[in-house]
Amino acid sequence: MSLNTGAQAIVQTLLHHGLDTWFTNPGTSEMHLVEALAQTEGTRSILTLFEGVATGAADGYGRMLGKPAATLLHLGPGLANGLANLHNARRAHSGIVNVVGDQTVAHDRFDPPLTSDIEAIAGSVSAWVRKIETPERAAQDAAEALASAGGDPGRISTLIVPADVAWSNAPAEASPASAAPAATAPDPTGIAEQLQDGEQIAIIAGGTALREESLRHLEGIAARLGATLYCETFFARMERGGGRVEPKRLPYFPEQAAAELSTFDTLLLVGARDPVAFFAYRSIGGTLAREGARRIVLAAPDQNCDAPVAALAGRLGVATDQGGSPSMPEAPTSGPLDAMTVGLAVAALLPEDCIVIDEANTSGGPAYALCASAPRHDWLTLTGGAIGQGLPLATGAAVACPGRKVISLQADGSAMYTLQALWTQAREGLDIVTVIFSNRRYAILAAEYERLTGTSPVGSAAMEQFTLDRPELDFVRLAEGMGVAAVRATDIAMFTRQFRDALRSGTGPRLIDVQLD
Amino acid sequence: MSLNTGAQAIVQTLLHHGLDTWFTNPGTSEMHLVEALAQTEGTRSILTLFEGVATGAADGYGRMLGKPAATLLHLGPGLANGLANLHNARRAHSGIVNVVGDQTVAHDRFDPPLTSDIEAIAGSVSAWVRKIETPERAAQDAAEALASAGGDPGRISTLIVPADVAWSNAPAEASPASAAPAATAPDPTGIAEQLQDGEQIAIIAGGTALREESLRHLEGIAARLGATLYCETFFARMERGGGRVEPKRLPYFPEQAAAELSTFDTLLLVGARDPVAFFAYRSIGGTLAREGARRIVLAAPDQNCDAPVAALAGRLGVATDQGGSPSMPEAPTSGPLDAMTVGLAVAALLPEDCIVIDEANTSGGPAYALCASAPRHDWLTLTGGAIGQGLPLATGAAVACPGRKVISLQADGSAMYTLQALWTQAREGLDIVTVIFSNRRYAILAAEYERLTGTSPVGSAAMEQFTLDRPELDFVRLAEGMGVAAVRATDIAMFTRQFRDALRSGTGPRLIDVQLD
Repeated sequence: MSLNTGAQAIVQTLLHHGLDTWFTNPGTSEMHLVEALAQTEGTRSILTLFEGVATGAADGYGRMLGKPAATLLHLGPGLANGLANLHNARRAHSGIVNVVGDQTVAHDRFDPPLTSDIEAIAGSVSAWVRKIETPERAAQDAAEALASAGGDPGRISTLIVPADVAWSNAPAEASPASAAPAATAPDPTGIAEQLQDGEQIAIIAGGTALREESLRHLEGIAARLGATLYCETFFARMERGGGRVEPKRLPYFPEQAAAELSTFDTLLLVGARDPVAFFAYRSIGGTLAREGARRIVLAAPDQNCDAPVAALAGRLGVATDQGGSPSMPEAPTSGPLDAMTVGLAVAALLPEDCIVIDEANTSGGPAYALCASAPRHDWLTLTGGAIGQGLPLATGAAVACPGRKVISLQADGSAMYTLQALWTQAREGLDIVTVIFSNRRYAILAAEYERLTGTSPVGSAAMEQFTLDRPELDFVRLAEGMGVAAVRATDIAMFTRQFRDALRSGTGPRLIDVQLD
Repeated sequence: MSLNTGAQAIVQTLLHHGLDTWFTNPGTSEMHLVEALAQTEGTRSILTLFEGVATGAADGYGRMLGKPAATLLHLGPGLANGLANLHNARRAHSGIVNVVGDQTVAHDRFDPPLTSDIEAIAGSVSAWVRKIETPERAAQDAAEALASAGGDPGRISTLIVPADVAWSNAPAEASPASAAPAATAPDPTGIAEQLQDGEQIAIIAGGTALREESLRHLEGIAARLGATLYCETFFARMERGGGRVEPKRLPYFPEQAAAELSTFDTLLLVGARDPVAFFAYRSIGGTLAREGARRIVLAAPDQNCDAPVAALAGRLGVATDQGGSPSMPEAPTSGPLDAMTVGLAVAALLPEDCIVIDEANTSGGPAYALCASAPRHDWLTLTGGAIGQGLPLATGAAVACPGRKVISLQADGSAMYTLQALWTQAREGLDIVTVIFSNRRYAILAAEYERLTGTSPVGSAAMEQFTLDRPELDFVRLAEGMGVAAVRATDIAMFTRQFRDALRSGTGPRLIDVQLD
């Protein structure tokens, strides 16, 4: 056992157990961790200009690889800046290890300016939080943080590292930590028997059930039971396109989702939660299934679905075919510049095996629907409702999968929360094409305002809170200001040409600012 | 008593008690609050593109006016995005009322995607947190939130508003809430007697002691006692320039501060905390006064200093003169483009009665020192160490003081945390000149890395974590992308000319990207 600093023990232990990628925004209290990362071959430290970029990137990385990346964050305020995207990551069941530097315990007693309650902030998003008490614990605590984070699905661990733990001598090796025990999957035999009785069944798939093989099994199960196969509205990642099985997606608006589910006696939940409304409304119930509907859980969202799904398929003796083939639409060269035509162009040109990040919000629906016919790709959505996830998520997905093109479909309002991600994309030469759907408003809020207050059209004073056109946001200049090549599309032929060019260009990020009509 | 919605009760109650300015970033759960704000004449709702801008602006507003603004934030993630600047505001003792929308209690039980532990997140920065339990409580709870927030100095209140409280009928009037009882100031007579014994005394002034009149009194007290008058390193606001009293500023680096204080037997603390090191180091103690030094507290940081300072001055019978007159330096037109020459130009051209926001960090020292000789102005600093405060703070200060020019001295790295503030500055036509000190690195981190790890020069792998030049950040494009007119300065004559032009231009924000040599 060699003696190193606590910081080195943490970095080396995580690397030894397979965690080699760090998304960072360090401060003075993390300098020994920066030193350890610089000294440890095999680790990659990716600097971000804002902590929400680091945490969102770790989420994207975790969703693609099913294993955690680390973040390096500066005390309570640094963690706080990353919290919204950790919230989204928690809802995506991504594994992440947050490493948060801290003052020494002795110095913290003086309540220096940066001191705050890190544990309270971390607790709101983390399944595992620990402040390392002594340098001797550093390696072991790091191993346990990683074990708890799991991967596919995973959880959020937050490891708080006092400065004197980081700089003191510490043993470098940890005894292997056992992973958190996976929740036990229910017995598929019993479930198969419950499902034999001819009820109207909706299968709601989410989480890890939305991978190619499980979806094939679920389609077979649905056919065998006369059931309908749905996916949850906001899923972490779906493998789709190229003739893969395409489940129906539960609508966002609760009236529509409730109408969709109203005919089903039974919900078979597979890696998905019982569907609930995103927000509360006066006239709509919270749960979306019809009253008295039976719920059967084949796998919970925090369980891997592969084995339970395969077991149920086997128990029911379903056949699974090998899927169809994609039927690409034509890329449009005329017509308006709107969510539909842009979606058509994206679907028509979508490169095989790409990764699509969808934070286009109200403008993203057509692209999602149309890309079902595109070549094979992965689709990632905003899982926790905290906007500002898309550009960081794209960043992390591109780091995780360097051979794959990333298409980042992004609403203008949401883009402004974590736009700093573009700089990291440029710095790392990541192969990302960002499409900004500029409708110059928070369109969802104008719609929800009407629904909630019953005021239509929205009055001018309230509308001031939903419009982004005074002044105009110029995403070409914003992107160029962070080193990302960018163009603006003002008609659909132009967009189709620009999107094709961006896909054909070498690696490195590109951005297209689409001025929707 | 009229019946209104809970949202109207909140907005009207706050307005009735003098809170008329809201910095907002609402979501669906805040739509009834948006409606109430739109309906209530006399309120001003200022939209921001990111919650950290809203909270930092409220801090700037509170520092200038000594009374709270409100923020309007979207559930836990919205509050989390604003948390770092609330941390700074807490350290500045600014009064702020955060109004955070929430799901209904009934809907929260379903754990919808945006649900998180709002109270835990709020608790880390707030002196007062309450979730309104019934619509009948809305007005009263709003009044109490505001009363607790105080003003000069103030505290942070967080009022959590369930959606059904916001949309249900509620009485509009609250019984007047009494303000939080001010901490009792110690008896200045007793303190005067303790100070009569000829010890070496350092007066450390902070908080509200850094206003013109208290500083005059403190200078008189220092002269009477043979004491030295200091100000804390990171103060909320100081009235200076124009011949006002200029205290010595305690240095940031703890070795320097400890050396400065090493000759003093007694520290007289006036609205300032006992000086402590910002960070922990292996070889430096946490407190900066010499061992055994006596501390005497005339006023705590959460107390208003006006009365105790005046009383002590009276008790000691000190004379206070009316101050000198400013002696402006010449604006430079040759030489390098560095922190010193830019500081000289800023000091030479500083307009009377302006407000200076200083988040220039390592580049800001010369400007601060030189502006002591400039005309009267207010100087605001980064109180809590969470970078990303400057541009929002400038925004709030300009809203608070529409007749005064705001000069925002801003480091490039820190600017990127909350750059979205520029859009709000443009939208509101705020009279702000931002000077970006572009040194293309986190200079403080490179310095602290050397100090902490003993490695000098910083190795290339670690240096990657501190450099911002690959790709270059182009603040002219970034500003223009958000509607702010901007220019780049590449020599000192150019900067002097551009800064003079920006000061002379009509209202509306301007930005100068200074490419330091």
